[in-house]
Amino acid sequence: MTTSDAITPASSSDEHGGGDKSIGWHKGYVEGSRPGLRVPVRQVHLTNGEDVTLYDTSGPYTDPAVTTDVRRGLAPVRGGWIESRGDTEEYEGRPVRPEDDGRSPASRDGLRNLDALFPGGARGPRRSRDGRPVTQLAYARRGEITPEMEYVAIRENVDPEVVVEEIAAGRAVLPANVNHPEIEPMIIGKRFLVKVNANIGNSAVTSSIEEEVEKMTWATRWGADTVMDLSTGRNIHTTREWILRNSPVPIGTVPLYQALEKVDGRAEELTWEIYRDTVVEQAEQGVDYMTVHAGVRLPYVPLTARRKTGIVSRGGSIMAAWCLAHHKESFLYENFEELCELLATYDVTYSLGDGLRPGSIADANDEAQFAELRTLGELNTIAKRYGVQTMIEGPGHVPMHKIKENIDLQQEICEEAPFYTLGPLTTDVAPAYDHITSGIGAAMIAWWGTAMLCYVTPKEHLGLPDRDDVKTGVITYKIAAHAADLAKGHPGAQDWDDALSDARFEFRWEDQFNLALDPDTARAFHDETLPAEPAKTAHFCSMCGPKFCSMKISRSITEQFGGDAAATPQEIEAGMLEKSKEFAASGSRVYLPLAD
Amino acid sequence: MTTSDAITPASSSDEHGGGDKSIGWHKGYVEGSRPGLRVPVRQVHLTNGEDVTLYDTSGPYTDPAVTTDVRRGLAPVRGGWIESRGDTEEYEGRPVRPEDDGRSPASRDGLRNLDALFPGGARGPRRSRDGRPVTQLAYARRGEITPEMEYVAIRENVDPEVVVEEIAAGRAVLPANVNHPEIEPMIIGKRFLVKVNANIGNSAVTSSIEEEVEKMTWATRWGADTVMDLSTGRNIHTTREWILRNSPVPIGTVPLYQALEKVDGRAEELTWEIYRDTVVEQAEQGVDYMTVHAGVRLPYVPLTARRKTGIVSRGGSIMAAWCLAHHKESFLYENFEELCELLATYDVTYSLGDGLRPGSIADANDEAQFAELRTLGELNTIAKRYGVQTMIEGPGHVPMHKIKENIDLQQEICEEAPFYTLGPLTTDVAPAYDHITSGIGAAMIAWWGTAMLCYVTPKEHLGLPDRDDVKTGVITYKIAAHAADLAKGHPGAQDWDDALSDARFEFRWEDQFNLALDPDTARAFHDETLPAEPAKTAHFCSMCGPKFCSMKISRSITEQFGGDAAATPQEIEAGMLEKSKEFAASGSRVYLPLAD
Repeated sequence: MTTSDAITPASSSDEHGGGDKSIGWHKGYVEGSRPGLRVPVRQVHLTNGEDVTLYDTSGPYTDPAVTTDVRRGLAPVRGGWIESRGDTEEYEGRPVRPEDDGRSPASRDGLRNLDALFPGGARGPRRSRDGRPVTQLAYARRGEITPEMEYVAIRENVDPEVVVEEIAAGRAVLPANVNHPEIEPMIIGKRFLVKVNANIGNSAVTSSIEEEVEKMTWATRWGADTVMDLSTGRNIHTTREWILRNSPVPIGTVPLYQALEKVDGRAEELTWEIYRDTVVEQAEQGVDYMTVHAGVRLPYVPLTARRKTGIVSRGGSIMAAWCLAHHKESFLYENFEELCELLATYDVTYSLGDGLRPGSIADANDEAQFAELRTLGELNTIAKRYGVQTMIEGPGHVPMHKIKENIDLQQEICEEAPFYTLGPLTTDVAPAYDHITSGIGAAMIAWWGTAMLCYVTPKEHLGLPDRDDVKTGVITYKIAAHAADLAKGHPGAQDWDDALSDARFEFRWEDQFNLALDPDTARAFHDETLPAEPAKTAHFCSMCGPKFCSMKISRSITEQFGGDAAATPQEIEAGMLEKSKEFAASGSRVYLPLAD
Repeated sequence: MTTSDAITPASSSDEHGGGDKSIGWHKGYVEGSRPGLRVPVRQVHLTNGEDVTLYDTSGPYTDPAVTTDVRRGLAPVRGGWIESRGDTEEYEGRPVRPEDDGRSPASRDGLRNLDALFPGGARGPRRSRDGRPVTQLAYARRGEITPEMEYVAIRENVDPEVVVEEIAAGRAVLPANVNHPEIEPMIIGKRFLVKVNANIGNSAVTSSIEEEVEKMTWATRWGADTVMDLSTGRNIHTTREWILRNSPVPIGTVPLYQALEKVDGRAEELTWEIYRDTVVEQAEQGVDYMTVHAGVRLPYVPLTARRKTGIVSRGGSIMAAWCLAHHKESFLYENFEELCELLATYDVTYSLGDGLRPGSIADANDEAQFAELRTLGELNTIAKRYGVQTMIEGPGHVPMHKIKENIDLQQEICEEAPFYTLGPLTTDVAPAYDHITSGIGAAMIAWWGTAMLCYVTPKEHLGLPDRDDVKTGVITYKIAAHAADLAKGHPGAQDWDDALSDARFEFRWEDQFNLALDPDTARAFHDETLPAEPAKTAHFCSMCGPKFCSMKISRSITEQFGGDAAATPQEIEAGMLEKSKEFAASGSRVYLPLAD
């Protein structure tokens, strides 16, 4: 939380939805050192007159002063910053081809009918003017505090120097493709708030572009810090364009998925050229980070043969199949340096994929997994040499007692590069509740140093997440992330808990709701048992009823003995005898008689 | 899991609901050394012909061979065992009085109209014949393997000697009041499977007897190992009678709640006599364990005055109010030895309450909390001297980095008595999701040695749990408990995960559902995306679709290289080149072409 002194309200009028004081919160901005550098915050207005300021990922959608239109996309807040650095140039770019959107040109017609081609996508792409890295890592190494770095420093309530230092050391990344000027910059690193990624994406079986864009805004509304578009069906290019142009958070992808679509699903027909072309296509669109499964090497494939669940990563299994078909070393591993050069010219951040992550408790921390991790360590060093920001992906399914080894090894092998884990799931026995099996592991591994958590929804292993699943996944992971921030002693993290607990102890129900991670559900649950409006101000709740309230008894103790902050326990004890007499004289009632 | 060799099916016919092979599981029994000692198990029948045997808490309700009638109660399976020990006698017992069921006799009329008085409650109560302890602790110290101990040994798949040893040392409890012959014995201790308690109970504001009995059977259906009846409204005695007579699991209570009702909610009017009488009333009914807040001592009350959330335990705040009103030491603390003598004559197990547990992150591990814990250590020693089985309750709200100190201190101070914790919640900011904030802490503290976890439902802090909330709470806590069993390396715990992961890898969808903690929801989630019946046998799922399945690619690797278990990775690698050629020759397809 930041102090509220420097916060500008989103608009002068409070009559709009997102900023309506009557609903208890307000979109605000903390102004930076230059015009246009305004960091969004969520200001919760408490009924006791105090304001609590929370980190806000929801983008302009919750700002009543901004008119958003998904067909036009968001305003390019970073546009001026990128341009003024003078190290990038617009260029013609790679032409969009029918196969970018699926195997059959016929599907394109369907799109036209749906008016689904993104209408605002006319801007030419941008890249490094001279091939040298235009990455936040390169700037940080030169000691430059970019506007993006200042932005995240304000957002995290730390000195900009900390941001520069962490990025320069490779301990943090600031994913920000020069072709994604719409994002509100954020940082991923263990010295910062733990971040949460939400996966969305259509598949060959189901879902539409509209749904995916809606899922992105929905996920960020509840706190997703980044979104990965894992589409594998048709219209991949177009879906991604819509998501990118409307996203206030960095977007990640797995280019291998789209590359496979271009060869009609035949893994063995993949080539470095097709892959490289796909990376260019996506980098030009503005993808901020890409999962690259370059650690799945030929010699590791046999290590998975006797696993309980083999290779469960889609990217990992595609690369294994390719290696298998050609009996050759992975083309991603072989061409990794060229890929580095390419990503550096757009500032695409690597997310080095863990293609051999365990897919079951039985396979956790095995030789296949750790062999790949050692390779990711090698690749991390190479990527850094090319000035490419890099994070490392982690598992998966891991029982609690084997979790710490994962983060400790990763930090050692990968020189403290940010770890980005999928859970891990701490048991296999609860399909339909894997947000919880994995939320447990996620909280623990984040406490121990993981920088970003990839959410898992209740539908994991069973189906594609719908709107409710996305929300449940995000909220569960925000809990894990915040629990980790608390356990790490992140400065200011506990202020939020304290504000909510104060509200709880003082029976400020509306404040409890408004401070909750999910105000809507908290309010709805309360109203289910005690729907009447007076219950919102009642000094009791449905758990105990009006005559039996521990909070009320306890509050009377606090009121009677807690006032004198300088008193020692002995003095309080002495005063207690006195108070005890007063208490008896006043009728010995620690709470007011209320109707039963 | 136990081996299935010695399992008797519940009935010769498989045509009933609970044992219908077509729904994938079957109630079975493992026979013990004497007639009538039959330990229930849940046998899951897999489509590959294998059976998986799981721990079963659901009682006779899931046995198609048993006709249950809530108005008659369950059969007294322990009746003969208790009688044949010859150390107890039936006696007239305390007459039931109108005030046992609430303050106003009028409410009793309402009950009659509802036909709510339990019709089967005619049996006289039983107690120690000569005042000496009739506790499992006393028997274990003499080296006796009671039928109850043999029962839990079979249930936990351990030697009966381990059970005797753990109970004798006070490291485990087997809660089993001589007046609760209906229960299927279970054990609570760190060397055994982690257990889960579900709280139910009406309050002054809402809910009925029927609902509470239904919640009990519902909670045990999903895996609750014990149930606490925390009723505070009217009809407390009658509600408890219905629950006890129908419960296959041990029932816990907080006698202080009912005692307070008897003095019309005026804490200062509580006396040792009223409390003692309430304990006798409940012990005669058959309550198996009782939360006693004897650690809330007068000098500790001032320690809570400057807390953020004071005293959040209802029992704790009642005792604090009493101490405050009289400026006297707690009557529970002063009369603890007499209480021990009493509980020993029924084998009621102590659950020494943590009345000063923290109610917020800010208050975790403070002096008030640990001062009380030290007193619980004292009381534990006294209880053991009287032969009373004892467990110790723990917090509450604790950030992750402060959790381990709780279990470590408790184990040290309380001579390894079973720890029984409420969560702990790892953050305060997520009302409506406190099953998750606390499930994280619960899994961790159980891994480190907590023996039983008290569930938290999504309604915590907001309202009374309904049927769905109870189920969500139980499932979440079964996840935490099982994750801890895995992390502790509990023998056989991983077999369950392995069976489910095998089913997942082999696309045996029905087996995945039937092995899941919650088969209904897993099946429903799958069907939401792919409802058609053929999808249940499809070798793909909706996440990737038929043409892009990592599991399928991976399975082909396993099939090609995993067969020869004796091969070294080098041999496998050599064989791989050969296979690679075959693979190319066969069209280089790692999966069958299916319709898109």
